Amino acid sequence: MTRYRLVFLGFGNVGQALAQLLLRKRAELLSLYDLDFSVTGIATGRHGSAIDPDGLDLQAALEIVQSGRSLESISKQPSVSGVEFIQACPGDVCFENTPVNYQSGEPAISHLKAALQAGMQAITANKGPVVHAYRELTDLAAQMNRRFYFESTVMDGAPIFSLFRGALPGAELRSFRGVLNSTTNLILTRMETGAQFADAVAYAQQIGIAETDPSGDVDGWDAAIKVAALVTVLMGIPLLPGQVDRTGIGALTLADIQAAKQANQRWKLVCSAKRQDNQVVAQVKPELIPASSPLYAVEGTSSIIEFKTDVLGPLSIVEANPGPDTTAYGLFADFLNAVAARS
Amino acid sequence: MTRYRLVFLGFGNVGQALAQLLLRKRAELLSLYDLDFSVTGIATGRHGSAIDPDGLDLQAALEIVQSGRSLESISKQPSVSGVEFIQACPGDVCFENTPVNYQSGEPAISHLKAALQAGMQAITANKGPVVHAYRELTDLAAQMNRRFYFESTVMDGAPIFSLFRGALPGAELRSFRGVLNSTTNLILTRMETGAQFADAVAYAQQIGIAETDPSGDVDGWDAAIKVAALVTVLMGIPLLPGQVDRTGIGALTLADIQAAKQANQRWKLVCSAKRQDNQVVAQVKPELIPASSPLYAVEGTSSIIEFKTDVLGPLSIVEANPGPDTTAYGLFADFLNAVAARS
Repeated sequence: MTRYRLVFLGFGNVGQALAQLLLRKRAELLSLYDLDFSVTGIATGRHGSAIDPDGLDLQAALEIVQSGRSLESISKQPSVSGVEFIQACPGDVCFENTPVNYQSGEPAISHLKAALQAGMQAITANKGPVVHAYRELTDLAAQMNRRFYFESTVMDGAPIFSLFRGALPGAELRSFRGVLNSTTNLILTRMETGAQFADAVAYAQQIGIAETDPSGDVDGWDAAIKVAALVTVLMGIPLLPGQVDRTGIGALTLADIQAAKQANQRWKLVCSAKRQDNQVVAQVKPELIPASSPLYAVEGTSSIIEFKTDVLGPLSIVEANPGPDTTAYGLFADFLNAVAARS
Repeated sequence: MTRYRLVFLGFGNVGQALAQLLLRKRAELLSLYDLDFSVTGIATGRHGSAIDPDGLDLQAALEIVQSGRSLESISKQPSVSGVEFIQACPGDVCFENTPVNYQSGEPAISHLKAALQAGMQAITANKGPVVHAYRELTDLAAQMNRRFYFESTVMDGAPIFSLFRGALPGAELRSFRGVLNSTTNLILTRMETGAQFADAVAYAQQIGIAETDPSGDVDGWDAAIKVAALVTVLMGIPLLPGQVDRTGIGALTLADIQAAKQANQRWKLVCSAKRQDNQVVAQVKPELIPASSPLYAVEGTSSIIEFKTDVLGPLSIVEANPGPDTTAYGLFADFLNAVAARS
């Protein structure tokens, strides 16, 4: 039996859902993978941090954070943050879940570097480091004989990166096309039932899908960063979000959407990329989708991606009802894939 | 660099497509996986067999078979068949692609056992051995430190078994639902455009999808054997095709299908299974599908499966335009997954 020391950097909805998943799966991890875990560090944005080399009481930590108190009360070491926190935690696996920074990928990149340099597996749900430092972090991971994994950055916990890493050996990705931003898809779905744009945005904010400033989603930035991540990792062509030809959903009117519905069609914010010679044409833009397309049935916060390769017909992955629990599963799967040999 | 000696048992459309794929990918296998291959044996149903421990000329073998001649001309050893052929071939990987036997799984089971006992990886596109001898062959493979893989048995080359083996660690499959039989889906799609049942069957036969006797597809047997394979492998509950509650598409009339179309719905032959306590309820039956379902857009020979697990929302895999090339890719992927450590 191997015991892994886990470090949580960021402990919001996703970090807490991961902690709960780990607790629920503890017996299964032992019986199926012969592994156990302790949590040696948790750093939060608003509830302090705690370090205990002998292992924190994870259940107690969840209760402290959920009741709005500070973790300092259960820490065995003085409070530190960021890179210093990682360096102070004895650990084997770092889950980096601090807020995303689209422009630079920082401070997440520095956190993940520090984790790898300390010999930890580096796992994140944060898209910034993937588009801004994929090569650098992957090379550093290889050098340290560790992994830099980030399954949850695109389509939450649905297996996308691991699909190409494991299940599709020798396949060359030629193009993809999909609906990857939950917020805009939910807004468009609400508008199909007659809601005005502003009301649909308010609804998405109310259920915790959209940010207070929804422009990152509405203007297509979140979609563009996902396209950039997929192109960078799966096509091996470094691409920044700013290099994606991007149009948001802001110009779509309720009349457009209702007219499409009458014609048995739907507006979707479509993400796509196509390899051309050694370059790539990448786009985010609203498209009118007929009922015969697999994209048509993707409603609300669900998402889809269709891959074209040199070895299969079009292959699509569809994920319905994502949320913090499914993002947490992506991190959990990355952890197992990083440490456990495949069965 | 490692060189693998490959043995082909069965060399019809799929075996030939696999040979072509291997030849096309040879340079890539060397550069990406540091591996090469030779083909030490090919046994066909109607064109004899050939064995050469030093490696046959695969391109020449393809031409011989495609021109209708016998492989005996290039063999270095006397002609043998079946288990004796496997025992006579020095090999590391056996691709078993003889015709499926729904009742017993033989002679494929004996072929795969002989391959494993001879120290070969056992890879097949044949559903019979999966439903009739999954446990036995998997245990024998483990004992010999080899693999028994069969990705192409369900949804051709689309990653289904490898998804759960690798990309979804720790996920418990609770239920699935899908359209898994290409022939009936093609027939139903043709009938939506006004074709009579008999004409639709004739069309499916003409393009090489349906058998001369189409009852295995039309009566739901092929779908039932796929359900049995998925339940046996992914849910760990041994299930035989006869234990699947099975209704074919024979009772559907053109009027039924046209009426559905008018209502913006479609008839699909739906495969499903649901875990209940330690048992499973498994079914193949025509269902009326609304446009809001991901099953609706699955036309012609395309297929879909939706998985419900304890860790993600519903996750669907859709494969469009399957054929011998995509089945061949499933075998190719099994080969790489069996011999190469993941990257």
